[in-house]
Amino acid sequence: MATPAQLDRLHIVLVATRNPLNIGAAARAMSNFGFARLRLVNPYEPAFREASSAVGASELLASAKVYASVAEAVADCTLVVGTTAVRHRDLHHPLKRLEGGARLMRKHLASSRVALLFGSEKRGLSNEDLSHCHWLVRIPTCEKNISMNLGQAVAVCLYEVVRDVKAAGKPEKQKLAAAGEVERITGILLDALRASGYLDRRRVNDSEDRIRRLVRRLNLRAEDTDAWLGMLRQIVWKLRSEKFPGS
Amino acid sequence: MATPAQLDRLHIVLVATRNPLNIGAAARAMSNFGFARLRLVNPYEPAFREASSAVGASELLASAKVYASVAEAVADCTLVVGTTAVRHRDLHHPLKRLEGGARLMRKHLASSRVALLFGSEKRGLSNEDLSHCHWLVRIPTCEKNISMNLGQAVAVCLYEVVRDVKAAGKPEKQKLAAAGEVERITGILLDALRASGYLDRRRVNDSEDRIRRLVRRLNLRAEDTDAWLGMLRQIVWKLRSEKFPGS
Repeated sequence: MATPAQLDRLHIVLVATRNPLNIGAAARAMSNFGFARLRLVNPYEPAFREASSAVGASELLASAKVYASVAEAVADCTLVVGTTAVRHRDLHHPLKRLEGGARLMRKHLASSRVALLFGSEKRGLSNEDLSHCHWLVRIPTCEKNISMNLGQAVAVCLYEVVRDVKAAGKPEKQKLAAAGEVERITGILLDALRASGYLDRRRVNDSEDRIRRLVRRLNLRAEDTDAWLGMLRQIVWKLRSEKFPGS
Repeated sequence: MATPAQLDRLHIVLVATRNPLNIGAAARAMSNFGFARLRLVNPYEPAFREASSAVGASELLASAKVYASVAEAVADCTLVVGTTAVRHRDLHHPLKRLEGGARLMRKHLASSRVALLFGSEKRGLSNEDLSHCHWLVRIPTCEKNISMNLGQAVAVCLYEVVRDVKAAGKPEKQKLAAAGEVERITGILLDALRASGYLDRRRVNDSEDRIRRLVRRLNLRAEDTDAWLGMLRQIVWKLRSEKFPGS
């Protein structure tokens, strides 16, 4: 998992973005995942700082820096990574899937600044932009529709950087009911079934075992046993106190 | 990695979405990651099917199904998962981080249908909506700004479902130049340095070793050796053929 100092070393660079709402959406995603360093190269709309899409990220957007060229925007970074949707274009760069690329970025962020570049909505990064990059990453989209919305692409890339590798493998913490509690519930359920006449028409021993197995398969939780006991007890009480037709 | 059959078993359910552009953005992200089953519960704007944000996903949007209640929208699914940004609200459900939650969804998708619910932009899922869920997932956002844009949240969740666990750990395939090639380049560089007079002012043996180490640290790639040899040879040729002042 990335530390705050690591997050602070990642600079998101949006190149020639046309729609200021996408700049705001990128800022919002950065803020959601704990990043603060936004750089813009020649944004199409100079009034981008008012983008209403930057919910919770207006401060981040206000402090974004504007540059006239990619070279200036990445000058203080030691690793420059470009993003692309394209797979088969004449790429003169190593192309990594996001999963592996983010891992390398995280390593680098432990000590040095990284720039992550996103191109314009229509054309992506130009060949000149790409020539400033050490390598490229692609989000593993489908062949059928490779091109993502800019704000969504930024969100997915940043999520992969902060995602906790260990969290994926953690076993579920779920406190199950102890066998004794399950057996108490089973007993009262059997009382209810007897009182209701359900068990009368069956060979009793076999039925009881079947019902015991049924209850075991419910994976009852410890916190739920009282509620089930309460419900069943009330049912049994009602069954025994009422005069039902035929009882 | 999820198979196409698994992807087809995941149903994205948007509940009471207000902005049709967010429905379009969700559809676009679904299409980017190979999902096709969109269900809407009481969308605020009935004309959502025209959302211009559904780039490349108009067919998916056209086939989206509309329901009057969460119960109907999830009736044929065997696992129902809700999304929430909230951590400390009185949640009556187990809450998992996305990394682990997606892993469980993938397992389930191997054989059965899963519904993944997203609430409205303003309020998220209501307690009534949540009562239909087996458990909840949250995207690991920062405490400072927990609330994500709907389209971005859908993109991040779906990315986590399709993300290739193995791709993150794959070693880089990078063919480095063989030692012999590196030594040829070093030799010609030394020729250039001699011809330019660079080595004259230094103790030659020590300098040569230093330059050899410098070249080794470049991690030259196999595919680049010819280009470097060509450049250096041209420089050496020019240095030797020209009459420089003082040579």
